[in-house]
Amino acid sequence: MTYCVALKLNAGVVMLSDTRTNAGLDNISTYRKMFFFENPGERVIGIMTAGSLSVTQTALARIHEAIHHDEADETTSIMKAPTMLQIATIIGNTLARTRREIAGQFQDLQASAASASMIVAGQRAGGEMRLFLIYPEGNFIEATDDTPFLQIGEHKYGKPILDRVVRPETSLADAQKAVLLSMDSTLRSNLSVGMPLDLAVIAKDECRVGTMRRIAEDDPQFRAMSAAWSEALRESFIKMPI
Amino acid sequence: MTYCVALKLNAGVVMLSDTRTNAGLDNISTYRKMFFFENPGERVIGIMTAGSLSVTQTALARIHEAIHHDEADETTSIMKAPTMLQIATIIGNTLARTRREIAGQFQDLQASAASASMIVAGQRAGGEMRLFLIYPEGNFIEATDDTPFLQIGEHKYGKPILDRVVRPETSLADAQKAVLLSMDSTLRSNLSVGMPLDLAVIAKDECRVGTMRRIAEDDPQFRAMSAAWSEALRESFIKMPI
Repeated sequence: MTYCVALKLNAGVVMLSDTRTNAGLDNISTYRKMFFFENPGERVIGIMTAGSLSVTQTALARIHEAIHHDEADETTSIMKAPTMLQIATIIGNTLARTRREIAGQFQDLQASAASASMIVAGQRAGGEMRLFLIYPEGNFIEATDDTPFLQIGEHKYGKPILDRVVRPETSLADAQKAVLLSMDSTLRSNLSVGMPLDLAVIAKDECRVGTMRRIAEDDPQFRAMSAAWSEALRESFIKMPI
Repeated sequence: MTYCVALKLNAGVVMLSDTRTNAGLDNISTYRKMFFFENPGERVIGIMTAGSLSVTQTALARIHEAIHHDEADETTSIMKAPTMLQIATIIGNTLARTRREIAGQFQDLQASAASASMIVAGQRAGGEMRLFLIYPEGNFIEATDDTPFLQIGEHKYGKPILDRVVRPETSLADAQKAVLLSMDSTLRSNLSVGMPLDLAVIAKDECRVGTMRRIAEDDPQFRAMSAAWSEALRESFIKMPI
């Protein structure tokens, strides 16, 4: 499995993904699930992926190919499309087509074996910053002020902390804490989500990736935060009246 | 859906269930999901149910009928079976048989539409206190010192807090806090789990239900705990170093 989460705040977007991929419990690998397409200052597009690696890798390769194709135009290239909505549509169509083709290759198995979803975040100069969750069928939903975060993969363990602390006015610094704590809860409760992590921040109107950090298993900062949070929870728990 | 959780501690067992049942999103009802069979001082058996209401109600009715049957014996009646293991076996067989029959009645639909699982806790005088999770097929697993809690239904939202604070040596008072906070996280993040709640405590070697409490939506104690926990989490979050 996978856990990817993105927050859309007044100040920008924060994205976090794990890197664990498994084909069965005895075949575990590390694969990047966060990708950027960037023309700094003009547009930035971040994509996170969950689900069948064969689907997501092929879909991303096709998105990439379409950008560099001789006849790339604004209906096929996410680097030429004029709006984030059209970018999400291109990505959704590519994902859906890839998923259908691969699912067709093993009709005997469950279709879910070839499922995949994506989170797409970004901004074009002059446009709004937007955040989408793209379903396996290519349709998508968008984050709003009421629901400023989107998750794919193993989303349940890490949702309570987000429900409690994330608001559109949350700062980018607090947002990074929130997604890391959400991931920490998921890592502790589910083996199929694993380190290292990829964390990225896109500040509003900058149209470029600001912070981009890979957090390794032995990252002292993340370990300290994880330990401090456990300690804080235990202390709060002990002090809690019954 | 449902959320039921039970902890098996050195000091006894704590059980908590919600009461929301839904057949579609527009047909929501309140049904008890926690049941006791008791011969105080001799044996106590607690059962919590998740899944198809038609399966769990029928299975429980059959368990009940088998107790009062003229020919009830230790292989059919959970009030006569000599050990908790045999009690779990009787319950598992009844659940599996009921589920198979009902699933057979709508072969066209997914079998999962008639799935159900149970948590069974209890003790017989002279025996150990035990806690089982019974799968739809009737097989079961048991809580151990390494994994002192079992959950059925919407278990993911409320697992992180249990992973962090529950140990076999946790007191019964702290255990009640832990399951209520685990439920609180679930209630906030998932609409298909709903108040009121049923909370029960069985102290070790008493072979009777000690505390039994229904917690209503407006329960001041639960609301205060929920608010205090939110506040504690937010405060810890703000103080957390990044």
